[in-house]
Amino acid sequence: MTIWYGGDYNPEQWPREVWDDDVRLMDAAGVSLATVGVFSWARLEPRPGEYDFAWLDEVLDLLHAGGVRVDLATATASPPPWLAVRHPETLPVTEDGVRLSVGSRQQYCPSSPVYREHAAELVRRLVERYADHPALELWHVNNEYGCHVSRCYCDVSAVAFRAWLRAKYGSVDELNRVWGTAFWSQRYDSFDEVTPPRAAPSFRNPTQLLDFDRFSSDELLDCYRAEVAIIRERSTVPITTNFMGFFKPVDYWKWAAEVDIVSDDTYPDPVDPDSPAYAAMVRDLMRSLGGGKPWLLMEQAPSAVNWRRRNAPKAPGQMRAWSYQAVGRGADGILFFQWRQSAAGSEKFHSGLVPHAGTDTRVWREVEQLGRELAALSDAVAGSRVPSDVAITLDWDSWWAVEQPASPTDVPYLGILFAWHRALTSLGLTVDFVRADADLSRYQLVVVPAHLAASDAAVQNLASYAETGTLVVGFGTAVTDENLRVRLGGYLGEPLRRALGVWIEEFAPPAGPDLRATGIADAPSLALAGEVVGGDAAGHVWGEYLRVEDAATLATFAAGDLAGWPAVTRRSTGGGSGWYVATLPDPAAHRRLAESIVADAGIALPDPVATGERVEAVRRGTALFVINHGADHAELLADGVDLLSGSPAKGLRLPPQGVAVVVESTTTD
Amino acid sequence: MTIWYGGDYNPEQWPREVWDDDVRLMDAAGVSLATVGVFSWARLEPRPGEYDFAWLDEVLDLLHAGGVRVDLATATASPPPWLAVRHPETLPVTEDGVRLSVGSRQQYCPSSPVYREHAAELVRRLVERYADHPALELWHVNNEYGCHVSRCYCDVSAVAFRAWLRAKYGSVDELNRVWGTAFWSQRYDSFDEVTPPRAAPSFRNPTQLLDFDRFSSDELLDCYRAEVAIIRERSTVPITTNFMGFFKPVDYWKWAAEVDIVSDDTYPDPVDPDSPAYAAMVRDLMRSLGGGKPWLLMEQAPSAVNWRRRNAPKAPGQMRAWSYQAVGRGADGILFFQWRQSAAGSEKFHSGLVPHAGTDTRVWREVEQLGRELAALSDAVAGSRVPSDVAITLDWDSWWAVEQPASPTDVPYLGILFAWHRALTSLGLTVDFVRADADLSRYQLVVVPAHLAASDAAVQNLASYAETGTLVVGFGTAVTDENLRVRLGGYLGEPLRRALGVWIEEFAPPAGPDLRATGIADAPSLALAGEVVGGDAAGHVWGEYLRVEDAATLATFAAGDLAGWPAVTRRSTGGGSGWYVATLPDPAAHRRLAESIVADAGIALPDPVATGERVEAVRRGTALFVINHGADHAELLADGVDLLSGSPAKGLRLPPQGVAVVVESTTTD
Amino acid sequence: MTIWYGGDYNPEQWPREVWDDDVRLMDAAGVSLATVGVFSWARLEPRPGEYDFAWLDEVLDLLHAGGVRVDLATATASPPPWLAVRHPETLPVTEDGVRLSVGSRQQYCPSSPVYREHAAELVRRLVERYADHPALELWHVNNEYGCHVSRCYCDVSAVAFRAWLRAKYGSVDELNRVWGTAFWSQRYDSFDEVTPPRAAPSFRNPTQLLDFDRFSSDELLDCYRAEVAIIRERSTVPITTNFMGFFKPVDYWKWAAEVDIVSDDTYPDPVDPDSPAYAAMVRDLMRSLGGGKPWLLMEQAPSAVNWRRRNAPKAPGQMRAWSYQAVGRGADGILFFQWRQSAAGSEKFHSGLVPHAGTDTRVWREVEQLGRELAALSDAVAGSRVPSDVAITLDWDSWWAVEQPASPTDVPYLGILFAWHRALTSLGLTVDFVRADADLSRYQLVVVPAHLAASDAAVQNLASYAETGTLVVGFGTAVTDENLRVRLGGYLGEPLRRALGVWIEEFAPPAGPDLRATGIADAPSLALAGEVVGGDAAGHVWGEYLRVEDAATLATFAAGDLAGWPAVTRRSTGGGSGWYVATLPDPAAHRRLAESIVADAGIALPDPVATGERVEAVRRGTALFVINHGADHAELLADGVDLLSGSPAKGLRLPPQGVAVVVESTTTD
Repeated sequence: MTIWYGGDYNPEQWPREVWDDDVRLMDAAGVSLATVGVFSWARLEPRPGEYDFAWLDEVLDLLHAGGVRVDLATATASPPPWLAVRHPETLPVTEDGVRLSVGSRQQYCPSSPVYREHAAELVRRLVERYADHPALELWHVNNEYGCHVSRCYCDVSAVAFRAWLRAKYGSVDELNRVWGTAFWSQRYDSFDEVTPPRAAPSFRNPTQLLDFDRFSSDELLDCYRAEVAIIRERSTVPITTNFMGFFKPVDYWKWAAEVDIVSDDTYPDPVDPDSPAYAAMVRDLMRSLGGGKPWLLMEQAPSAVNWRRRNAPKAPGQMRAWSYQAVGRGADGILFFQWRQSAAGSEKFHSGLVPHAGTDTRVWREVEQLGRELAALSDAVAGSRVPSDVAITLDWDSWWAVEQPASPTDVPYLGILFAWHRALTSLGLTVDFVRADADLSRYQLVVVPAHLAASDAAVQNLASYAETGTLVVGFGTAVTDENLRVRLGGYLGEPLRRALGVWIEEFAPPAGPDLRATGIADAPSLALAGEVVGGDAAGHVWGEYLRVEDAATLATFAAGDLAGWPAVTRRSTGGGSGWYVATLPDPAAHRRLAESIVADAGIALPDPVATGERVEAVRRGTALFVINHGADHAELLADGVDLLSGSPAKGLRLPPQGVAVVVESTTTD
Repeated sequence: MTIWYGGDYNPEQWPREVWDDDVRLMDAAGVSLATVGVFSWARLEPRPGEYDFAWLDEVLDLLHAGGVRVDLATATASPPPWLAVRHPETLPVTEDGVRLSVGSRQQYCPSSPVYREHAAELVRRLVERYADHPALELWHVNNEYGCHVSRCYCDVSAVAFRAWLRAKYGSVDELNRVWGTAFWSQRYDSFDEVTPPRAAPSFRNPTQLLDFDRFSSDELLDCYRAEVAIIRERSTVPITTNFMGFFKPVDYWKWAAEVDIVSDDTYPDPVDPDSPAYAAMVRDLMRSLGGGKPWLLMEQAPSAVNWRRRNAPKAPGQMRAWSYQAVGRGADGILFFQWRQSAAGSEKFHSGLVPHAGTDTRVWREVEQLGRELAALSDAVAGSRVPSDVAITLDWDSWWAVEQPASPTDVPYLGILFAWHRALTSLGLTVDFVRADADLSRYQLVVVPAHLAASDAAVQNLASYAETGTLVVGFGTAVTDENLRVRLGGYLGEPLRRALGVWIEEFAPPAGPDLRATGIADAPSLALAGEVVGGDAAGHVWGEYLRVEDAATLATFAAGDLAGWPAVTRRSTGGGSGWYVATLPDPAAHRRLAESIVADAGIALPDPVATGERVEAVRRGTALFVINHGADHAELLADGVDLLSGSPAKGLRLPPQGVAVVVESTTTD
Repeated sequence: MTIWYGGDYNPEQWPREVWDDDVRLMDAAGVSLATVGVFSWARLEPRPGEYDFAWLDEVLDLLHAGGVRVDLATATASPPPWLAVRHPETLPVTEDGVRLSVGSRQQYCPSSPVYREHAAELVRRLVERYADHPALELWHVNNEYGCHVSRCYCDVSAVAFRAWLRAKYGSVDELNRVWGTAFWSQRYDSFDEVTPPRAAPSFRNPTQLLDFDRFSSDELLDCYRAEVAIIRERSTVPITTNFMGFFKPVDYWKWAAEVDIVSDDTYPDPVDPDSPAYAAMVRDLMRSLGGGKPWLLMEQAPSAVNWRRRNAPKAPGQMRAWSYQAVGRGADGILFFQWRQSAAGSEKFHSGLVPHAGTDTRVWREVEQLGRELAALSDAVAGSRVPSDVAITLDWDSWWAVEQPASPTDVPYLGILFAWHRALTSLGLTVDFVRADADLSRYQLVVVPAHLAASDAAVQNLASYAETGTLVVGFGTAVTDENLRVRLGGYLGEPLRRALGVWIEEFAPPAGPDLRATGIADAPSLALAGEVVGGDAAGHVWGEYLRVEDAATLATFAAGDLAGWPAVTRRSTGGGSGWYVATLPDPAAHRRLAESIVADAGIALPDPVATGERVEAVRRGTALFVINHGADHAELLADGVDLLSGSPAKGLRLPPQGVAVVVESTTTD
């Protein structure tokens, strides 16, 4: 077991003489894994059916000789221009009917049989040639599925969408019933009349939109599956494809079941003070997608990226600190995009492990330092697990649904998850993500934010969980079934209504005048009152007329038309409890509310591990990772030894971006 | 005579068993009129030429048995998907050339002969079947003409546009002359070269744009006329189509002449403090369109809508208060969209009379209360008229023209009308809207704001009116003729120049640096001085170098390059007077100016009817409607009896959203 | 030699009887030059191949009889609608694939052979007919090339782009190498696969974008050249085409070599306090493009324009003041758009020399005054030169490149040039613009801002210049070669690195969190310290880790991660010096820095010529032009006589917008 170190290696951008230097520098930096071939299709197959593997043979042999293992990409993420020239129908089309062009990357319709056949043939050749190469450690299928083109509205996609709908609904009558096409005269007389949700005069059918989201995620997954099937005919080496954190277009729960190891690309904004907390949430998702198994940080930037409007470099030490955050939250690999900073093309201003300016640079010195450290840490950490008693449900269907237009209000799904995650982790807890229909019994506390599109199974599962655990249901949950048909009679569905002892009379989100002339709408809040939220509390995003049948009201709305109406309720079930939260409390109130809920769940809060406002702590296996994201020094309070410095932990001073990995035993290997 | 009560009823969204419950609840709520069939085309004609009326027969019979009258829609507002599949050329096209798709509603080109033929055949069948149905009270042609598609730029529309132009201009030489195509080398050699104003490299010809606006309004009106003609072959039942307040795309003056009763859909923003004043203006327009006859509030929301970014419910009592505003301003019907809140589709989060949560809800209780009250009020109010001595001119041509690009400045036409309407109604006056070329003799005061595109007839009519009445001409008026050819020599046209005693040397709108980098431009104002505008007055939107020949200067611009130049002038004509206002005064100055003008017109201001800042009062027939839109209680000062409470009016305390309907007699029926 | 006075004359917009009045008024105003025929194609060739010159014959004869010389346009800027009807492929296409329509102007693809043939034939006829007309003074080819359509993405353009690329690169392998297509799998197997940079899934190839910018500028230049060739077959009269100031789409360095006299259209915002400084920069560019020769202000507005959101008129005197700015900075002609304000069409609200309101107007009186004054001034000024010791480099390639997406940060190229120009002119200096690869030896100081795409020749030229002159290199310079391949090893290129004694380790632009939800990103700054920038100094836009090898550090960054790193350095070369500036100082710091640099260059600052904050002074020939752009009176300090008033200069009080033209001698003709 090891903590992998390395990154994307694109030697085809460089003259042959640079390759030797690459391998030499990789050795100096402790690089153990290189991802090769991600953007090589046009080089591997310069024209249809003509393949050139000689250069790749040489690259793999060189790496092998240098002791670097290879994560070999299938190279299907970006087709060569010749595919578009010969088959223009493979180019994707936007909802406005614009057919996208070559000249950047990923210009393919995921449903295109022509694209799929050409991709399959390429994979077949690659697998045939390299399945037994001694450097091969991992297969890297395609790359960042859906990153730039996740929805295609072309006629080829329309045919595939109809087939998907036919398989789901069986009959067009059933589709009409579920989609509610009786309204607005949308009734389809046959599947052949259905289209992707292209630009239309007004709001498009919500279930059509949701099914198109599901279909689009599934089409990409089919692409992935097809490549996996080809690889598996010849190779037993593990397979991955790189995820992109909380990436809305693709339902990673469905995907995670089909990768051998979860891997992730994340590029937090270096100057955003929320980045460490947000990135922590991303790491927790990656661990959760793999069921708790170690995962790989497949891509991060050594320093600046180049796709924001203004791109600051990472601060000194920040790359190292954030790398340790990933390891602390379960990563067994720290990899980067990309090895050598490009001299041309669209990412030449994206940082590389080897910068434009060379190795007499801060970036390179930090690269070398981290490589050394991770190698030394591998035995103590690699393979170990990150324990958690708390989970938040995550549901792509609800994400897609709750952010549709023609909704009660703007609901930033991810923002709400983030608010809950931060409120809980700020108490020192580690949080998992789960599906609402999964086995929840190993958690003492489960939070369900904005799970709008809830199946009967999910409703029943959550209601049952409340019998023994502490269930917290947030607003916007189980408003509809999984196909967006409203749960009449007060929302929530009967089992949840019973479990929580409440029902909802009417939604009442805060709203200000809609200033259409300027396109600006302010976002007012609602005052809250109650010990569980503390003083001066306010609720954001949502409010509603909540009717209590069998629960205690722990906080109320405190002003306006909602004054006196319940905002937080709790029903004791004997063995567990069911909380309902009808708004998004402001951060201070949210943290205070989380404390009450955690206490109710019988979870003991860990002792503080360090002084300082912005110190992150997470336990993995026997090690406690402590990271100082603040601008001031922090002082460790925990006992034990810091594996990085070898010093006693207690009293150790961590500078900004400083890290300690504390174990109680002094044995580090 | 009755005040109708009810709303859109879409039973095809619900299982048959719900229908009986509907009729039972309608009875409980006092529903007297239901609009049926608005979105039923796909259900009535599931495939081309196959009709299914059985379900509609049953619905109408059920309603009839329940004592509910029917407003029967022609169902042509939203064609079924099969029309687009078989005739893709019926789909509308944007100015960028995007052909819109099925999946929402209203996806038809108004000029399409294919659409028109299919619609006509459907109407023929409906009329044939239901002309003699005993429940039939009203025909409801199509629905919200132009709501989502009011302009189509397709080739079919181009052919129709050319025919319209040929009919207007006779020869292409005349078109060239009027459009001014000698500039920018736009000369057309034949009508066949003319296109709709599609996306072009720079500003499009202004008169082409204006004619396309007129053409587009007329094309929709032709659709309406075609349906009316079919109905009239078999039925004498009154016909309406629902308007949408101040709806820019369609010239309702032309339409109003062709409906038997004006009806309106209005959805004021519940959280905008300007909504009551704005809605009052809309009600006044509807009354004016019908020449003072009672009209129908065809659609309003029982509580929240779902198409704003954030959608608050109506406050308790707000729906009732705003309903009485409509009745007070001439409505003989209070109807809603829609009866039962949808369980699916694009409007499921739009409130209904029967909410998702059922009848144990505030919304339902208010629905029942209002039904009872209106029934009791019908005899005293229905059919009576709303008197007014003051009118504001409204002109769709000028609205379209003044908001074109390549103009002197941003002129928000509706905002200027609103400013005048509010200044006058805040004094307790009731205001009509009129055409500038109408008989104005029954008004003591006529205000003409931004009537940019004034025909010779309008100029002459206004000038003549000033001989006997008080005429107030606002900036931007009669700058051009009705086809946007500039009135040279000082603007206004000779008769108006003489009547007002002024001419305009040059426009000088307030402007700040145009911050192109951010897309933000500030909107500075101009200081004003003069007793008629009070102290600390400022002018917005407009300023100009105004030359006085024969008028008194009552206010001047007070700073900057315009300092000392006239801002408000008045010329006495002996029998009347002609005011000119060269800017948009701030609200306080505007109210003060309005007081001077009203006094000049010899109009006595009514006594205050209640204490309180935001109390609306309007007289209809013998009743005085008093509505408290403020946040505090108001106390009635008027004598008489409140028909709603049966109490003496004087001293009655109205809570927020409270209403009184005061008559001097104590007889309430 | 004379200072021309006049403007665009479009008599085809007016009835014949107006023409006589025009000539009479032109005489009254001192008009000496009229530009005729700019938008006349549709009138000259009403249908394909049928020409009508009779009206133009009459116009030219009338002008000639009135003593007005003619700048005759080739009329090819706006094709008639019949061209688009018969050849729709001549219509331009946007990057999203929208084919633009007729109805405005300039609707042609610059690469279209059909357009070019029709244009050529029209020019041939015009030249044949008017080459020997006695009124002819100047040929005016086309109009504002590229103003509305500078980039066309249609298939015809694609063919032309491929030919351009083939000519540049010779082989597709070379194109692949230079463009870096090895990245993102963009390799082209033949030129036939390359397209214009149409809408694509992600960032398009940077060198493809840059080459398309060059190609597009060149295509327009080819259009120009084709017309010139036809004219030159028959006529030796000088030829121009009107530029548009700092117009990004077209590389005027390439164009300037091919016009006989530079002419410019500029419309500064009358209410922007930066306009005088910005316009000064534009005038300096025009002079520089012509190598110092007099140029023509071909178009300015007499008062308001009509294409901003809000269009203020010019203040009294402002048109005159700004006209003198142009003359002072080298113009030998003051011309306007347009003679008579249009009564119809898209520019009817753009001011004219003869306003809508006629001649009893401030505008007309100012027109007459300026005409008189310029005639009197001609002998003293016309033909003389404007001396300068300071130059700023300007490079369209870098402008295009530095503002591409996927860059380190937002770099407003023009804003940076403006900051340098203003810092230097605020010291009383006159500034030229130069190419970085030009002979720089006549300047004592050369500033090189953001010259990103620097060829080896430019790098070498600048480095050599530093041996004898004072070279100031700004951040973002020589980051890449002229085809955007990065200069590895610390940027700048070896000769410049040596000349400046610095290299760059990593870019570190100031950045704040990227607030994606709102689309707003703040633009933080970096504190600076050092005597050359003064106290409380801040740097904007850029920062970087600058490594000093052989230079003095004169200012440093003063806070954050960059604290202590160099911000301004200077290396003495013995005969000259090389400064490097790693940020954009705030205006006060920039001026202070400029003072140090100017002193280092041995340039003596001129004595102040007047009191007052916003007084502009520029020397042309023997005359000193002094213009008061401030809101208060200024008092002249210079000796001599004011040619405008005939008064002694010293002590003369200039009101706001006041002008003096001071010569030491009292002889004014």
